[in-house]
Amino acid sequence: MNDLVWARTQLAARLPDHSLPQGLYTDQRAFDFDLDAIYGSSWLMAGLECELPEAGNYLALKVGKWPVLLVRGKDGEVRAFHNSCRHRGSILCQDGHGSAPKLVCPYHRWTYDLDGSLFAAGRMGEGFDKTEHGLSPIALRRVAGALFICLSDSQPEFDSFGDSFNRYAAPLNFSDLKLAATDLLVEQANWKLVMENARECYHCPTGHPELGQSFPVHMVRHFDTIRNPEAETFAAQMDAHGLPHAAAEGSWWQLARIALNPGSTSISMDGRPVCAKPLTTLNGGNVGSLRWAIDPHMFAHATADHVFTFSCMPVGPRETHVFSRWYVHKNATEGVDYDPFALKELWLKTNAQDKELAENNHCGVLSPGYRPGPYSLEAEALAVRFADWYCDRASAYVADHG
Amino acid sequence: MNDLVWARTQLAARLPDHSLPQGLYTDQRAFDFDLDAIYGSSWLMAGLECELPEAGNYLALKVGKWPVLLVRGKDGEVRAFHNSCRHRGSILCQDGHGSAPKLVCPYHRWTYDLDGSLFAAGRMGEGFDKTEHGLSPIALRRVAGALFICLSDSQPEFDSFGDSFNRYAAPLNFSDLKLAATDLLVEQANWKLVMENARECYHCPTGHPELGQSFPVHMVRHFDTIRNPEAETFAAQMDAHGLPHAAAEGSWWQLARIALNPGSTSISMDGRPVCAKPLTTLNGGNVGSLRWAIDPHMFAHATADHVFTFSCMPVGPRETHVFSRWYVHKNATEGVDYDPFALKELWLKTNAQDKELAENNHCGVLSPGYRPGPYSLEAEALAVRFADWYCDRASAYVADHG
Amino acid sequence: MNDLVWARTQLAARLPDHSLPQGLYTDQRAFDFDLDAIYGSSWLMAGLECELPEAGNYLALKVGKWPVLLVRGKDGEVRAFHNSCRHRGSILCQDGHGSAPKLVCPYHRWTYDLDGSLFAAGRMGEGFDKTEHGLSPIALRRVAGALFICLSDSQPEFDSFGDSFNRYAAPLNFSDLKLAATDLLVEQANWKLVMENARECYHCPTGHPELGQSFPVHMVRHFDTIRNPEAETFAAQMDAHGLPHAAAEGSWWQLARIALNPGSTSISMDGRPVCAKPLTTLNGGNVGSLRWAIDPHMFAHATADHVFTFSCMPVGPRETHVFSRWYVHKNATEGVDYDPFALKELWLKTNAQDKELAENNHCGVLSPGYRPGPYSLEAEALAVRFADWYCDRASAYVADHG
Repeated sequence: MNDLVWARTQLAARLPDHSLPQGLYTDQRAFDFDLDAIYGSSWLMAGLECELPEAGNYLALKVGKWPVLLVRGKDGEVRAFHNSCRHRGSILCQDGHGSAPKLVCPYHRWTYDLDGSLFAAGRMGEGFDKTEHGLSPIALRRVAGALFICLSDSQPEFDSFGDSFNRYAAPLNFSDLKLAATDLLVEQANWKLVMENARECYHCPTGHPELGQSFPVHMVRHFDTIRNPEAETFAAQMDAHGLPHAAAEGSWWQLARIALNPGSTSISMDGRPVCAKPLTTLNGGNVGSLRWAIDPHMFAHATADHVFTFSCMPVGPRETHVFSRWYVHKNATEGVDYDPFALKELWLKTNAQDKELAENNHCGVLSPGYRPGPYSLEAEALAVRFADWYCDRASAYVADHG
Repeated sequence: MNDLVWARTQLAARLPDHSLPQGLYTDQRAFDFDLDAIYGSSWLMAGLECELPEAGNYLALKVGKWPVLLVRGKDGEVRAFHNSCRHRGSILCQDGHGSAPKLVCPYHRWTYDLDGSLFAAGRMGEGFDKTEHGLSPIALRRVAGALFICLSDSQPEFDSFGDSFNRYAAPLNFSDLKLAATDLLVEQANWKLVMENARECYHCPTGHPELGQSFPVHMVRHFDTIRNPEAETFAAQMDAHGLPHAAAEGSWWQLARIALNPGSTSISMDGRPVCAKPLTTLNGGNVGSLRWAIDPHMFAHATADHVFTFSCMPVGPRETHVFSRWYVHKNATEGVDYDPFALKELWLKTNAQDKELAENNHCGVLSPGYRPGPYSLEAEALAVRFADWYCDRASAYVADHG
Repeated sequence: MNDLVWARTQLAARLPDHSLPQGLYTDQRAFDFDLDAIYGSSWLMAGLECELPEAGNYLALKVGKWPVLLVRGKDGEVRAFHNSCRHRGSILCQDGHGSAPKLVCPYHRWTYDLDGSLFAAGRMGEGFDKTEHGLSPIALRRVAGALFICLSDSQPEFDSFGDSFNRYAAPLNFSDLKLAATDLLVEQANWKLVMENARECYHCPTGHPELGQSFPVHMVRHFDTIRNPEAETFAAQMDAHGLPHAAAEGSWWQLARIALNPGSTSISMDGRPVCAKPLTTLNGGNVGSLRWAIDPHMFAHATADHVFTFSCMPVGPRETHVFSRWYVHKNATEGVDYDPFALKELWLKTNAQDKELAENNHCGVLSPGYRPGPYSLEAEALAVRFADWYCDRASAYVADHG
């Protein structure tokens, strides 16, 4: 309750189009609040369905400190559960991917079916009712081969995103992908600074020389195509192939198919494909990049040759985990069709550069001389959008729970 | 005061025979509360007298973050003090064992006699009264060669434990022991999860294959002997040799002499003695194991050949230190009568297995899907007992201080 | 507000001439309070002017967690700013020394003139007013080649210190110095324990055998010369050369030129100079040591051959950074006129010894048996003075902000 009062005061001090009040970036109370009000109440992208191709495949991950488990059942459905045994609370599976015919708790061997129901529990006596001790479910949606979860019982509206995402993503056949590489980066910065950084390219021309090779780092507002003849040519090509491209958005998501720099068909060190087995050959393999982004935590780019996803998870007021994943066509062979190092090189470099920028940012935001400053409305439009969304969601949470 | 109100709310939410509400395992407030209400108010076993054989021998250790010092005086008495100089508070001795004719503070050389009185303090001027600056004493009891301390001025009743313990332990002559080996294990789990783990063997059959060799891991309730002919034979043998064996207990302690698995006379990798110089030759060297346990922090096993003690100390909400000690007959020679590695092997393996289980447990208890689950009343009777004792003690503390 | 009430309660419990109540050394609330009430409100010595010889030279450092920047402008003036960009708050410069024609934020290239005014900011649109986004200034004073800053808008009175310091220090020509070596020591102890340690030599005779070679470790009160014929000879020599020497002090500072031990002209392992290019040849190169000390954070010694400064910065309730700096004549050549290792040896050893003492002290102050103890009024007079000053400042802050 006290923390909500504090959060309300901080939120009330927000200036329009300016970065957030200091405490929202640095205070332990903001971190605790954000976990509940933001990460616990939003739709998050957990991964792609191709990561769980068979019944019994599972994926365990953390949302902040909260362990979550996704499992494909015998009926082909993917379900999400809290990764916490109903006996004494142990996690059932370590973070990462795995496979099992049933989910067996490593502690006392309580055993769950793949649909989360309790199958067996030894020595629990006569009065024990297995049907009351199934795994706690988490809301899950599957769209165009991607998996979205929400830990809250009252989820934000999903379908307007789902319908749009399906239209933009379906032509790329994400179900034909496989996970080729992953990376975890630990940043000593608040998660909101990490996300604001990920939402603007004002810093890109000087901060990311390699990214600028293929990516339109001078973008205006939400990938606007105004006064850009090349972008208009790209738009016409996409229209010709029936690939949606116009920027679309809802309160917590954005979607656009954008033209890459002239000569580039992938987001890579040299703008050329990093995997020889394409997801699509439409338009001669030049379909720009399908960028989607979900507040609070992620963005992704799908080019004709690979998909990259970026997911940001808060660990503490000044510690954030950034999970990167790279996907290629499931028939691509490592060492033949793609070199894992080349696949990862651009984003590893870019993320490392961003880590330094975000850590510098956090360091300076701690200053008593910090004053929320004005965003560039042209170059940081999506960062403003993120900060506005954050304040709206946080304020709504305070109003609901205050 | 606020923390006490919070603790009361958590305690009120406890369901009978179920694990504790989430916050009691994970919250900083529970940790702070536990130090005062539990560790600061309970009898704890500090060690065995044989660790301080001569006048001037001392043992320094931490109870949580609190430094404690045990010293044997010239009069042969062992005394306990807060390990904090009465000048500016420095510790007098580093953790561990040592020996000194007087206790000299390393900071400004204030010098204390072995009975804690201030002997000398330089340059303190005329009005300074040495008699007002002796070390702060801590309550200490000696029983059957073991040392028990309580940091509170109002200690729980001791004698019913002391009398029982003396009856069960005296035949093993702990005064003939020496400390042969020690180990410190750092666990990323709340101390109560570490202790619940240490109080039940529901997880042993699959979690501790090595321990199961000698130890009756399928035990029912409090080492019940019902319907176990071998245990009844063992009981008759113990009776014949005048060795008490029936399970006994008080609010904060348990005591039992239990039969090991057939063919085993020690708790070791193969069930055979790990030290060739026995503490007793009664019943052909098969006296099972004297197990004693004190809430909140320890259990121990004394077989005919060695004594093992396990002590759990909270360091933070998610950090716990487990101190292990192995004792053998004082005349046993390392490398001849015992191999230190073989002496330690079983419990090092077992504790490492338990560390993983407790850390998994903590990880999952953090889940918003965590719900206190039902203990197995047959297999986890002593864990229930621990949780009940904790809630009783904590509630009494809240009532006294609220 | 709650923290202020807590601080007031702690301060009210202080006994005269005794060390502080436990919570002021160990509690997170005291740490947070101290940053604001003490470090944020006091004059601190940031360094010597010789560290920034040219226009564009800068020095970035942290006061606690607060990043600060000192820059020499084209007009020759040194200015201090909060090291936080007015756009989104990033630090402009990493800690340490550097040089730049303008200050360019590494994030989005906002560019500041050396006087802190905003020179350029790209893509900020038409309505943006550069004059409103200059760097936030920090109060700075230059005296006798030393630089002092205060982060508060209402600074403590400075001139009585400044005038005295100038009289004592000017003859040594600090503007002829250069920074020759630095060291950072991380201590697991509260900053006030580190400073109390640095303010008394009660512990020196046994704690610092090397320091005792040249330094009068048996000093009485504030370097009193009563009943010390050698000190009186030294005083007459200083008078003859016009070098002020009598102990002087104000509420937050002390100043004295003290005699070293017979035969010593420098504070070094053997009492002999550690740099062959002297700052002064007055009195045959024996000018004792000019010691100055500023609460809350520093002391320094200037002998004829070098200057040593010690600065203590709080990082957490139990973590403190100690920054050491050694200066020699700017014309001295490393490897010819001085050996950096020999220059640093005495204070590195002494500081390492003090680190152990302070960490032992913190460890013991955590004890429930800790009771504030009496200082030696003869041997710990300056520690009493520090503790009294702390309580006065803290109480005044509580009164002003409560």
